[in-house]
Formats: sequence, structure tokens, C-alpha cells
Amino acid sequence: MTVHFKQVTIVGVGLIGGSMGMILKGQGLADRVVGVGRSLGNLDLAVERGAIDAYERDPKAAMPGTELVILATPVESFAGHLKEWGHVLEPGTIVSDVGSIKGSLVEQAESLVPAGVHFVGAHPIAGKETSGVGVGSVDLFTGALCLVTPTANTDPRALLTVQHVWEAMGAVVRSIDPFVHDWILGAVSHLPHLAAFALMNALTDLEQQTDAGNNDRCSLLEYSGGGLRDTTRIAAASPEIWRTIFLGNPDNLLTMIETLEKHLQRFKALIQAKDGPGLEREIAKAREARQRLK
Amino acid sequence: MTVHFKQVTIVGVGLIGGSMGMILKGQGLADRVVGVGRSLGNLDLAVERGAIDAYERDPKAAMPGTELVILATPVESFAGHLKEWGHVLEPGTIVSDVGSIKGSLVEQAESLVPAGVHFVGAHPIAGKETSGVGVGSVDLFTGALCLVTPTANTDPRALLTVQHVWEAMGAVVRSIDPFVHDWILGAVSHLPHLAAFALMNALTDLEQQTDAGNNDRCSLLEYSGGGLRDTTRIAAASPEIWRTIFLGNPDNLLTMIETLEKHLQRFKALIQAKDGPGLEREIAKAREARQRLK
Repeated sequence: MTVHFKQVTIVGVGLIGGSMGMILKGQGLADRVVGVGRSLGNLDLAVERGAIDAYERDPKAAMPGTELVILATPVESFAGHLKEWGHVLEPGTIVSDVGSIKGSLVEQAESLVPAGVHFVGAHPIAGKETSGVGVGSVDLFTGALCLVTPTANTDPRALLTVQHVWEAMGAVVRSIDPFVHDWILGAVSHLPHLAAFALMNALTDLEQQTDAGNNDRCSLLEYSGGGLRDTTRIAAASPEIWRTIFLGNPDNLLTMIETLEKHLQRFKALIQAKDGPGLEREIAKAREARQRLK
Repeated sequence: MTVHFKQVTIVGVGLIGGSMGMILKGQGLADRVVGVGRSLGNLDLAVERGAIDAYERDPKAAMPGTELVILATPVESFAGHLKEWGHVLEPGTIVSDVGSIKGSLVEQAESLVPAGVHFVGAHPIAGKETSGVGVGSVDLFTGALCLVTPTANTDPRALLTVQHVWEAMGAVVRSIDPFVHDWILGAVSHLPHLAAFALMNALTDLEQQTDAGNNDRCSLLEYSGGGLRDTTRIAAASPEIWRTIFLGNPDNLLTMIETLEKHLQRFKALIQAKDGPGLEREIAKAREARQRLK
């Protein structure tokens, strides 16, 4: 099965939305891709980069004729968006998203779209530590996992269409419960980001306590190797997006931070006890788990 | 100034020691490079890979004629080594190392080498998450920072010689107090490694709590993207080496873990309070610090 749309409207033409537009247009999956956004400069850049054919700053003006709407703004804006323009969508329109939070968000979106309009949650696990359509590309999703999160209310044909869109994007599509999604992503994405942010802020504190033996303040980070660079790469991610993700998954995330804290405390106790074999066991366990990631 | 040695003896022919041997031989800096190690298989591989000309399993047998000894075994073994064969070194011999811990270790090494033998601490900030002479290479140190850690007792000519060796390895050499070294490396290397180990172990715990909605256990890690892979790359490092490093720098490391814990607690409090602007500020601070790393 191939999919084809007369019009796809992308709300939020950043890295993800912009890359989707480039692929939809590049592969001829849509006769017309319309962008909706706040910043004229960004929308002009999106046209220039071939991510969209045209744009509207008023989403209501973009919706007539749209068969597929992609929500690609920060997740906290979804409800406001659907309230603002959901009622102008034609019956049969599919609304999907690319948000990193599902669970309660999918419930809310389902309750906000009018009868006859189909919501299908989706989350491509792809991205960069930089953002914006300027770094978008047609191979952003190649080989990436895209999770779709149907519920008992999901229209099966709309689900199939969204799955095909993501296959056309080059992604490997997997279906998962929206609340299980939030638990899993909390662990493999939200917690590592939070840990990287906290580590970076800890290093800033430690830097302020460092005196290189003379009166100059010493820049700790000058002494770092590739390890720190890798470990904290994701700490350069967008504060706006990550604030929203953290607030969208608070209960899972709090549990997970506490699990991380428990392991930091275990390391502290082993170091205090000078327990070499215990330390080696904990490190070996981490190494073994990490080696499964390759 | 160029340096040339009749014989260099490398104790511990792994990734670092082996790569040094390859460069010493490749650049003709030593007439003869002798390896000392425990494992015959590894020593044979080191000969095969051009890291050493010959080897001895008994270090005392390797020392006669040596002008430079490089200690490249885990740091906890240094004292035992120096006690075992320090007395057979000829006056004028230089003993250096590549250990990730300095501070008290340099004090101890200085007290253990006989009169007329010169100890110079050195630490190249280079490595891989894999170990062994099999992954050694002549460009391991190219452009890397190498910290030398002289004290009031250090022989100036021996220091200069070690600096020139590291320049010949392609490293950028910087001189730093041994105790300041341990503070700085605690922050930019030891803490990030410990955080990566703890994160990986937390994910293993969380995985055991995950049920993908059916009766199958779900493998969390299947859902991870590039972010987690980067963040935890260093968690695959050698348990033996890192146990030793953590136990060699306990006081700094405990302080630093507590600083990281403070920032995790701060994130928890902001999430609990649903404080969006506060979260965005903390994340922006991390991003800004991370961007200085590039």
C-alpha cells in the first residue's frame, strides 16, 4: 500500500516537522505541504529548504482541504491547538503528532478532536541535539524506530495510514500502548537527558570551586576528553522542549530519578567502604548492560 | 630537542602502553622497547602488532639497560611494582606512568624509587571504551592532552624528557599539580564515568519493572536512540581499571557525587512543583555549559 495526500499540514516546522515535510514533498506523498508556525523567518527558511510549499500563520486558514495534520510543536501546546482549530477539520481528517509524551496526551487529544476526525499518536525516536528546520534532512528517520500508540478508540484505517507514512519516512514502525510508551521513554530518553543536564550543572558548580593552583580560575572543561563530550552531548538539547517533556511525564520520571539516586548511593557506599570487589561487580554489571546496546 | 633511548621498558602493554610502544618504535625514539606483562597471549600480540621488540614476564629481568620505564598497569599496582624492581634500576633512569590518579600516588612513587632514579607523573587524556593492545594505534594520542604532574622533588631534566616523549606521541603537554590533577579529573572524567555506570544500572533495574502490556518481558534498551548510546558509551569501560580509579580518588569523588545528587534533587523538586520556568532555566544552564565544550 502506498499513501498519498492532497494536503498535509505540519504545525511546527522545526527539525522533525521540517524533515517530514522534506520527505513528503521529495517522495511525492503529498500534492501540497502547508506549514503553520509562529516565526516568519523560520517559515521562510522552511520554504527555502523545500520542507513546505506554503505557510499560514493562522492555523485555521491552513486546515481546509487538509487530509493529514501533523502536530510537531512542543507537546504542551497540543490541547490549545486542537481547541483552536479542531472544529474546522473535515470528517475523515487524520491528526497525528510526533511528541515525546503519549499517555494522558493521547487521551486528551482523542477527547478534543471532533467526531469523524481520527487521532493517531506517533513518536519517531530520532533527533539531534540541535533544533530547527535548518538542520532538517531527508534521512533523519532512516532506520529510526517510530512508535505508534493506538488505543481502543483508534480508527484502524487511520492507524494504518500513519504507519505507512512513517514507513515511507524510512522508519521502523512499532505499535505500543501510550502509557507503556511513557514508561519506556522515561527510562531510555527522559532520564538520560535529565542525568546529562544534572551532570553538566554539577560540573559548573565544581568548576566554580576549582583553583588551578594559582589565582586564575581554571576552566575544568578544558581538561575533558571524548568521554565527557559524548556523555553530555544531549545536554545541549532544547530547554523549551525538555521542560515540556519532563512536565509531561512526572510520575515515571520521579520514580526513575530515584532509581538513579539509589545507584549513586550504592557507588558512594562502596567507595566509602573501599570495597574493590563490590565496585568491580557494579561496574561489570553496567558494562554488560551497555554492551547489549551495541 | 629530540629524545632517544637505548631501551624503554613498558610495564603493562595494553591500549595505552601498547600504543606508546608502537609510536616509540615507529618513530625510532628507542633502539629497543621491552614489554612486561602477565599474559603471554597479550605479550605475543604486542610483538605481532609492533608495540614491543621483546618481552619479559619477570620485570627485574627487563630493567637492566632501561633508561625509561613506563608504568601502564592499573594504578593500584604501582607501589608493588616499584617495591619489587625499583632497586635494580640504574641511577639516572626515569620512571614515568600513565595513570589516571596522581596526588598521593606520585608522593608514594617518589618515596619508593631509589636515590638517583627520577619519577615523573604523566597522564595522557586519551583512551577508548575498549581495552588491550589489539585496539592500540599510533594516533591514539594525536592532539590529546597529556598532563605531567611535577612536584618540588621532580628532577627538571627528567621532567623535560617526559614532556618531549609526550610531544613526540602527538600530545599537547600541560603541567599541573598532582592533587589539582585529581580534583579536575575527578570532575571531568571520574564523575561522568560513575554517572554512566549508575545510569546503566538504573536502566537494568527499570527494565526488570517493565511489562510491555503482554506477558513478555520488554527489553527497554530496544527502544533507545542515539542519545542513550552516547550518554552511556563510557559505561563499557574496564571494571578493573575503574574500580582502581574510584578507590584512588575517593574524597574528591564523594564530594562530586554529592554535587550531582544535589542537582538531581533540584530537578526532582522542580518537576514536583510543576515549575516550568525553573526547569527551563536549569536546562538552559546545562545547555550553555555544554556548548562551551564544543
